[in-house]
Amino acid sequence: MDLTPIMSPEALNRFLEADFPQLHTDGKVFEVMAVGPGTITMRLEPNERHLRPGGTISGPTLFALADVGAWCAVLAHIGPVALAVTTNLNINFLRKPEPGPLSCTCRILKLGKRLAVVEASIFGSDDADLVAHATATYSIPPQ
Amino acid sequence: MDLTPIMSPEALNRFLEADFPQLHTDGKVFEVMAVGPGTITMRLEPNERHLRPGGTISGPTLFALADVGAWCAVLAHIGPVALAVTTNLNINFLRKPEPGPLSCTCRILKLGKRLAVVEASIFGSDDADLVAHATATYSIPPQ
Amino acid sequence: MDLTPIMSPEALNRFLEADFPQLHTDGKVFEVMAVGPGTITMRLEPNERHLRPGGTISGPTLFALADVGAWCAVLAHIGPVALAVTTNLNINFLRKPEPGPLSCTCRILKLGKRLAVVEASIFGSDDADLVAHATATYSIPPQ
Amino acid sequence: MDLTPIMSPEALNRFLEADFPQLHTDGKVFEVMAVGPGTITMRLEPNERHLRPGGTISGPTLFALADVGAWCAVLAHIGPVALAVTTNLNINFLRKPEPGPLSCTCRILKLGKRLAVVEASIFGSDDADLVAHATATYSIPPQ
Repeated sequence: MDLTPIMSPEALNRFLEADFPQLHTDGKVFEVMAVGPGTITMRLEPNERHLRPGGTISGPTLFALADVGAWCAVLAHIGPVALAVTTNLNINFLRKPEPGPLSCTCRILKLGKRLAVVEASIFGSDDADLVAHATATYSIPPQ
Repeated sequence: MDLTPIMSPEALNRFLEADFPQLHTDGKVFEVMAVGPGTITMRLEPNERHLRPGGTISGPTLFALADVGAWCAVLAHIGPVALAVTTNLNINFLRKPEPGPLSCTCRILKLGKRLAVVEASIFGSDDADLVAHATATYSIPPQ
Repeated sequence: MDLTPIMSPEALNRFLEADFPQLHTDGKVFEVMAVGPGTITMRLEPNERHLRPGGTISGPTLFALADVGAWCAVLAHIGPVALAVTTNLNINFLRKPEPGPLSCTCRILKLGKRLAVVEASIFGSDDADLVAHATATYSIPPQ
Repeated sequence: MDLTPIMSPEALNRFLEADFPQLHTDGKVFEVMAVGPGTITMRLEPNERHLRPGGTISGPTLFALADVGAWCAVLAHIGPVALAVTTNLNINFLRKPEPGPLSCTCRILKLGKRLAVVEASIFGSDDADLVAHATATYSIPPQ
């Protein structure tokens, strides 16, 4: 597997802003922080909309963070041209996160011609315990 | 398995409105339409926020519909008191939905004392082809 | 979705026997019983090797039944030529089955050019309650 | 999370041999090699029965390795008394393994009172690329 990234965090953030303005309807809450060989780290700064009763962060917000993060991990390695589509996502919710920023580290498990599989690990503000863990599959169209 | 529901669609909708006001931040988009033995049907009326470029409906929106629907299926059979929590959700995205209302039919596969497993099938406006299919597990706290 | 099957139960069973002799190392335990539009039913007659302490049937046996059944559902609709490969399988174990024959009904959720998604429901001898429920994805090579 | 193991590889192997003789019907193919805080490594020495046409290793064999490995990771940390049961397993098949021994490293993502979630990564003989990746949930009965 050649896992040399070809997009920087800045390039990914510009791409998200230009092509997925809906992600930023409530302000720029998603931001790619780092890119490495086969990996990226994405940060979510939650706002009122992402919270649930009791002050925790909603399931769909955690899903969105895992999905956007894993999808950016694929794009970072194949470029912004190809339109990769999520075909499967399996997520385990492990602990209730405190309200506050979340960090999602993504790792490419497979980058094939037709399918990519990515693992996403979501950590809370204290960066210690896992909040959620997901694996996602993306279908990569012929280029 | 005793799968006699104990909450009506009206009772579930009142419960969602009172206890999960965040669901309705942009208007009442989620509505329980029908409840039966082991099943419920939930409808989503998407707005601008749920769309993606090209006019399709976003992945997190489909996730939220499957999760809220399956969770309401559990509550419909154990009542609104118990606080069931999603522990796992696996979703397959099958077809891009047209923009327009979505229908989610949920079926309880297991209702145990500690765990419930629910299948959620999401259909598009034409009610024909499956848009997405999910299975979710809920942890039921001791009562 | 055109879901007209093109292989009969007999053709599928002959194909399994000829191409997957390992399935039958301990006798012919797997048998396709019925094929319909988008569906098949497979039966497993467990032997000593499939049992676990306490007389229940092992997890890998339930996995194999779901996987072989779902894979045969794909082949029944695309023919025995194409080599479909399992890329993802998610299984929920719902109830301990009694020792005895199991029945697995499979339903195609999506049959695309590159990916097929199939649901598999495993029932015990009494044909009443679900023992396990799985969804599986198969990659279909270019033809 | 207190992730201090309380069983050694030797104790786990003795437990498997005594309580799950079926695992060893064809010789001792499964062996726990190492135990650490929150982790274990299990080895599978495949025989004729685990192979598939073309000389690769069967899907049910990879499933069994992930499931037995992840289950032993739980037992290593809660002891052999409690009867943990697999409730969900999601597996991605990433590459066809060469025939030869497989290594499965398991990592506990959550060890709660009622549920444990474990990640299993399966490597081939060359110990380089991932062959399969799974996450599994175990229900832990009250003690």
